[in-house]
Amino acid sequence: MLRINENYLKLQASYLFSDISKRVANFEISHPDKEIIRLGIGDVTHALVPACIDAFYKAVEEMGNDKTFRGYGPEQGYAFLREKIAFEDFQSRGANISADEIFISDGSKCDVANIQELFANDIRIAIPDPVYPVYVDTNVMAGRTGHATDGRYKGFIYLDSTPENNFVPNLPSQPVDLIYLCYPNNPTGATITKNQLAKWVAYAKEHKALILYDAAYEAFIQDTSLPHSIYEIEGAKEVAIEFRSFSKTAGFTGVRCAFTVVPKECVGYTQIGEKQFLHSLWSRRHNTKFNGTSYPVQRAAEAIYTPEGKQQTQEILQKYLTNAKLIRETMTSLDYTCTGGENSPYIWINSKTDSWEFFDRLLTKAGVITTPGVGFGRCGQGFIRISAFNSFANVEKALNKIKAVLS
Amino acid sequence: MLRINENYLKLQASYLFSDISKRVANFEISHPDKEIIRLGIGDVTHALVPACIDAFYKAVEEMGNDKTFRGYGPEQGYAFLREKIAFEDFQSRGANISADEIFISDGSKCDVANIQELFANDIRIAIPDPVYPVYVDTNVMAGRTGHATDGRYKGFIYLDSTPENNFVPNLPSQPVDLIYLCYPNNPTGATITKNQLAKWVAYAKEHKALILYDAAYEAFIQDTSLPHSIYEIEGAKEVAIEFRSFSKTAGFTGVRCAFTVVPKECVGYTQIGEKQFLHSLWSRRHNTKFNGTSYPVQRAAEAIYTPEGKQQTQEILQKYLTNAKLIRETMTSLDYTCTGGENSPYIWINSKTDSWEFFDRLLTKAGVITTPGVGFGRCGQGFIRISAFNSFANVEKALNKIKAVLS
Repeated sequence: MLRINENYLKLQASYLFSDISKRVANFEISHPDKEIIRLGIGDVTHALVPACIDAFYKAVEEMGNDKTFRGYGPEQGYAFLREKIAFEDFQSRGANISADEIFISDGSKCDVANIQELFANDIRIAIPDPVYPVYVDTNVMAGRTGHATDGRYKGFIYLDSTPENNFVPNLPSQPVDLIYLCYPNNPTGATITKNQLAKWVAYAKEHKALILYDAAYEAFIQDTSLPHSIYEIEGAKEVAIEFRSFSKTAGFTGVRCAFTVVPKECVGYTQIGEKQFLHSLWSRRHNTKFNGTSYPVQRAAEAIYTPEGKQQTQEILQKYLTNAKLIRETMTSLDYTCTGGENSPYIWINSKTDSWEFFDRLLTKAGVITTPGVGFGRCGQGFIRISAFNSFANVEKALNKIKAVLS
Repeated sequence: MLRINENYLKLQASYLFSDISKRVANFEISHPDKEIIRLGIGDVTHALVPACIDAFYKAVEEMGNDKTFRGYGPEQGYAFLREKIAFEDFQSRGANISADEIFISDGSKCDVANIQELFANDIRIAIPDPVYPVYVDTNVMAGRTGHATDGRYKGFIYLDSTPENNFVPNLPSQPVDLIYLCYPNNPTGATITKNQLAKWVAYAKEHKALILYDAAYEAFIQDTSLPHSIYEIEGAKEVAIEFRSFSKTAGFTGVRCAFTVVPKECVGYTQIGEKQFLHSLWSRRHNTKFNGTSYPVQRAAEAIYTPEGKQQTQEILQKYLTNAKLIRETMTSLDYTCTGGENSPYIWINSKTDSWEFFDRLLTKAGVITTPGVGFGRCGQGFIRISAFNSFANVEKALNKIKAVLS
């Protein structure tokens, strides 16, 4: 009898986005003429920039000719892209990361989800709240938790992110082995300073712990004092793996390209305390379970690092940041406390009432879709997230409607 | 202290392809002027066909315009591709598979590797020998085996594929829960008849077992009596998951697109014997750990099913099959017993001596790279695999050199 992995049955059905869809669908049926503007899901709306499209075309052309055709590429990604990333994203910021520490993939969600396979099953895991659900669910599926009660799984150590700590959690009060951090944060839009991050690195060193640092939104950072990478912190290479994505940086959500940095110094331990390099474990995983990222996609990603590519992606990022600024300023002027939106595409808003109640009000009165904060965890109750991913015209229209409802 | 998944340490270093590379490199250094022809690795050499390239271009163009741009797609793949597959690959062959039973991915290696996550850790697994190493290694990494001795892991039930059974293993003599089968086979090139496959389906039904059917090479089938899909066998939908790939069918090894079929009837069981549908478990895995396959790649794959796409990919397949025929005929004329090459791109050759010894002879005397059979398992000792993936001119040249050495 083929028995299943019963840990899957512990997963709480993801009511959040299906609930949102249902409420939106119901509203659309009862109000067929009312316009709806979507500022909920974190998906980009602007096209790939011309530099990327040109490189993409050229690579497709190569694939159409026997002489220039490429079959299987290296599982870890092509050197042309790994070298650009190592130099532009790390070395040029003083972070000593080399090309062979970069692993190209088809998406950060996959990498963030798969990384936990490298670790033992009974490690102690610190999970922020509110949080990107993938960190939670993948560890539940692997059997590292008990069942959930009141939205929290038994076995995790939750790190509360609240207005009191500016959405940067305090160090855990009990020892942990694995720590998920994401800055600029999804969903709160909060950022972390170098000093704050240095404390986490010191904690990890002291406890022989590992930090999984999700920097998918680093391209939105405007404040030059903020770290783009955890490797800007001295000593982080031994205790941190970093996840990056071209999804939000350059509109790659539908094209699929991301990368993970596993420094060669980065270690875990066997039961008897022997050091094991995580670089070779992750490399082994890539070789065994992955066959590389699509070649034309890697060429399109490489073009992000050309002078034109940089300028063109910056222009798009500035459009989203202009939207974010307007959202933040409008909501603040309406007397709502906001976090994020200055170095991130998300604005986290104290709704002064139940998350779902506020969500419903904005949907039914203003026709604007947002995301109820409680969907990201218990600490998200009383907040909503508004996303800046839309056209300026739509964002402006949405805010005018919100103003009419809330003022 | 962050402890690692020590099951990774049980993995035998994959000496096969690194050993091959080393031997080839040594030979190249000592014989810099000698031409080398590669018939080892199973990678395609012909370009994507014009129908796919045109569709690929068009989709890239869409991604460059705000009005036609697409962000995140459905994790399970776009309906336009799932519907084509369901109709063309299954319904038209009398296999009642619907579009929502098709899960598009970026590669069959990923799917074949990830599927084991759905199952309990102490199930009994039947593994053919010789075998594609991914089936083995991913279960070792998940902790379903003990250590290896003499190339076999403790805990697996090995299914010997030998000349005596025409490389279609006998039903296991002890009960198993999960069975890996691959036809047309990699590495042996052997095929399975409907009657033979029906016996496996009946076995799975009787034992509440599941068959993981890898049909990555089905497009090479010429014999119209052979099954392309396990779902051509009555009752298979309850007990089989099938893996398909565009890699060898249409040259997608570098572009990355494949799919997995999980029928809605297909079940596993909880500890207490309750039925659980594997479709919803796999769907949950896709939603949690994957963000969909690149949109332009899915459009390129869709074009395989157009009239021009079908005709053009058939032409390429026939080129590889012409190579395979020549390899088979030449080796047979030299008095070597061959399997495969009629309905598959691989020819499995009894080397009448140690696999590595024969490999070395072909490399150093003829300058031809093959794959030693023992690299695929104990039953591969005394065989080599020759791949038909190259130009006809190269295959002809390689065979002339082999003839000169072996006659």
